[in-house]
Amino acid sequence: MEPPDWPERRDVFKLCSDALSLQEVVEAARSPKCGAVSVFLGTTREDVVNGRKVIGLEYQAYESMVQSELSKLSRVIRERWPHVMHICLHHRLGWVSVGEASVIVAVSAPHRRDSEEAVQFCVTQLKALVPIWKKEVFEGGQCRWNENSECGWSQNHRSKTRTKTETKDQDQTQDHTQP
Amino acid sequence: MEPPDWPERRDVFKLCSDALSLQEVVEAARSPKCGAVSVFLGTTREDVVNGRKVIGLEYQAYESMVQSELSKLSRVIRERWPHVMHICLHHRLGWVSVGEASVIVAVSAPHRRDSEEAVQFCVTQLKALVPIWKKEVFEGGQCRWNENSECGWSQNHRSKTRTKTETKDQDQTQDHTQP
Repeated sequence: MEPPDWPERRDVFKLCSDALSLQEVVEAARSPKCGAVSVFLGTTREDVVNGRKVIGLEYQAYESMVQSELSKLSRVIRERWPHVMHICLHHRLGWVSVGEASVIVAVSAPHRRDSEEAVQFCVTQLKALVPIWKKEVFEGGQCRWNENSECGWSQNHRSKTRTKTETKDQDQTQDHTQP
Repeated sequence: MEPPDWPERRDVFKLCSDALSLQEVVEAARSPKCGAVSVFLGTTREDVVNGRKVIGLEYQAYESMVQSELSKLSRVIRERWPHVMHICLHHRLGWVSVGEASVIVAVSAPHRRDSEEAVQFCVTQLKALVPIWKKEVFEGGQCRWNENSECGWSQNHRSKTRTKTETKDQDQTQDHTQP
């Protein structure tokens, strides 16, 4: 089947420090030409790491590089799934409390197999390739950078962007002023 | 890994004739214990079938059986993916115009692989096993029941529930008073 000629196809990528809007992401992805919208919400999970309770995550990004990496990712998705219509991804930066969404991705396509596969691929690649890092913040104010096990290069990259107040050992805890 | 003991786990299944609320479905599925919510929206797609333009779909259900089939489906999902937390599925009945959602499914889990796989399985099984049928309505008022290619038994079942005004040949068109 020939890929359709859809000049209205759009990619919407946004980094923001306010709460994410599910409605906004899904509205940007919907299309009357599509019968399927697949959506993923990544939310901060209650977690206990080595006996310490996680109360939130703090995200930082290399913003200009995020945009170019997401554009590359969109090109790969559209090559693999030529029937994908719209791709919308919003990622939150800064403080994200337990239960809140840090990322929402929505992909539309005429049929669901394409939207399902593309949204999964998009989230996997986002975590593996796009320069966004998260710090786990524990009850009592301790925190640690959380190496994403899916990411091959972020450890090296992140070490260059750390501030002097942050430890070189990502597992070592420190006092932290965030909530 | 042992399946978690979560007494708050819930299944929310709803059939309704009003517009579906994405927010309501996703809120019912979210949990602070989960890092992932996977969502599927099935929407009425602009389509042309044998030169006839689809303007909307009309859904009918065998309502009491839908509830029991969805409960069975939930049990299967929870057996296969024991880390799934909440499952929420809203399905619209009656008239659904192009662009509107006929079904929204959301599944939460601590990690995304479980929520992604479970929501896909849920939609596939919904279409294959749950007694909800759709009629395509074309510009000019013609319509036809649309056999779901994924459904093994609905043709027989549906033939028992047809009214006298409807044709036995599902591909044969008829006048229809819906919009």
